[in-house]
Amino acid sequence: MNDRPIGVFDSGLGGLTVLKEIMKILPNENIVYFGDTARVPYGARSKETIIKYTFQAINFLMSKNVKAIVIACNTATARSLKEANEKYDIPIIGVIEAGARTAAYSTKNKIVGVIGTEGTIRSKAYNVEIGKIDKEIKIIDKACPLFVPIVEEGWSNTEIASLTAQKYLGELIEQGIDSLVLGCTHYPLLKRTVGEIVGENIKLVNPAKETAKDLKKILENKELIRLDDSIKPSYEYYVSDIPEKFASIGEEFLKKEIQDIKNVEIQKY
Amino acid sequence: MNDRPIGVFDSGLGGLTVLKEIMKILPNENIVYFGDTARVPYGARSKETIIKYTFQAINFLMSKNVKAIVIACNTATARSLKEANEKYDIPIIGVIEAGARTAAYSTKNKIVGVIGTEGTIRSKAYNVEIGKIDKEIKIIDKACPLFVPIVEEGWSNTEIASLTAQKYLGELIEQGIDSLVLGCTHYPLLKRTVGEIVGENIKLVNPAKETAKDLKKILENKELIRLDDSIKPSYEYYVSDIPEKFASIGEEFLKKEIQDIKNVEIQKY
Repeated sequence: MNDRPIGVFDSGLGGLTVLKEIMKILPNENIVYFGDTARVPYGARSKETIIKYTFQAINFLMSKNVKAIVIACNTATARSLKEANEKYDIPIIGVIEAGARTAAYSTKNKIVGVIGTEGTIRSKAYNVEIGKIDKEIKIIDKACPLFVPIVEEGWSNTEIASLTAQKYLGELIEQGIDSLVLGCTHYPLLKRTVGEIVGENIKLVNPAKETAKDLKKILENKELIRLDDSIKPSYEYYVSDIPEKFASIGEEFLKKEIQDIKNVEIQKY
Repeated sequence: MNDRPIGVFDSGLGGLTVLKEIMKILPNENIVYFGDTARVPYGARSKETIIKYTFQAINFLMSKNVKAIVIACNTATARSLKEANEKYDIPIIGVIEAGARTAAYSTKNKIVGVIGTEGTIRSKAYNVEIGKIDKEIKIIDKACPLFVPIVEEGWSNTEIASLTAQKYLGELIEQGIDSLVLGCTHYPLLKRTVGEIVGENIKLVNPAKETAKDLKKILENKELIRLDDSIKPSYEYYVSDIPEKFASIGEEFLKKEIQDIKNVEIQKY
């Protein structure tokens, strides 16, 4: 039973930063990753469509006999996590709650910054989750549409990234945030650049890391941790379309070699 | 008859740069613009889907009694222009042919650069059109994914734009291009920055301008030009979803005030 893999799902390759944190904190677990690269980005799609895509991803992962699923995509979490938990019995968690909770507990002056894609920022998903914990927290949010292509070009530590971060974050710093949620799965790659701009007094919250910690706790509580470490864990990668860059960019995200990426016809699930 | 408007269609607001050139060269024409903002970007969608969307846009524009249509979108042109011309009787032109032709006739050393979104570059649409005119022309193409968000942020004339242009275009300059096709409807806004990087010896080809010239010729040949200039021309703007920024960014594209943007339920057409 405990040998069953963990399923990780994202609309593309951003979720690999979440996978990286899971591998780090749960180094003994088998994992199946699915990236819906044929239909990325989800941002502009309707709630109904995103629910359909999420259910297809979950059905596929369940066909691999997973014991728990992480929706490692902000858009899919915001639009479909609740519906997924109503429909399926296994534990399914998203990336928003853990990040929001960490920000809510780490802020001292109750001014929190949230950055993400235009879709995530427009959805106000982090604002809602943080508000559930503490209504008095003021949230300064900002869409940063250049950050994803900067990361995907491999330019995270260039002057372009630094100037862009200055432009996006100047306003948030001026308004006195003491915590900043990196609300997009691509952004952990910009941690160094963003950290240099905001300085040491602003705490960076990486929802990928917090989500991995939550997952570990859930597996422990449900006694689903893989205990037998005599056989090395296996990592499987599936995508709905193989973009040329998936392996090369993906390895940058994961800091690990990605072997044997398989194609899946996701619309059949 | 000649009072009938020209229809201009794009997946979003990029086509406004084409509209601008049409207004300049045909200042007397009534125009209806449709931006499919609910379903932008088309880049990742299948050929079948794009054909369906294009036909819906054409059906909508024909309900406005247009006399000719410009598909002011590189993706839609590459994927559906042929099919649109097979199906409909009115003149329908795209943005690729005129730009490709201009580049093919302007290059002296037969080395042409083409820049665009990842979708346009992957489609090789400009390569095919240029190859039809002169097979000996060598094409150096390059996807520039940061350019669209830079333009949409209003950062076209910043250091970020300049550094990004240097990174993207350095390779093309080294390979000796003497003409550069701005193969994305957003890129005319980067003309100054790109011009500074490539220098005076590389001719910038703006397909929007060339397409407007082609349209004028077609209307003249078919005797469809609006001659009565006693009444000022009317400009109507329709979108399938009103994004907050459409008017503000759109005015930057069009260099003109955009009034009275109307919503259309495009899936009904």
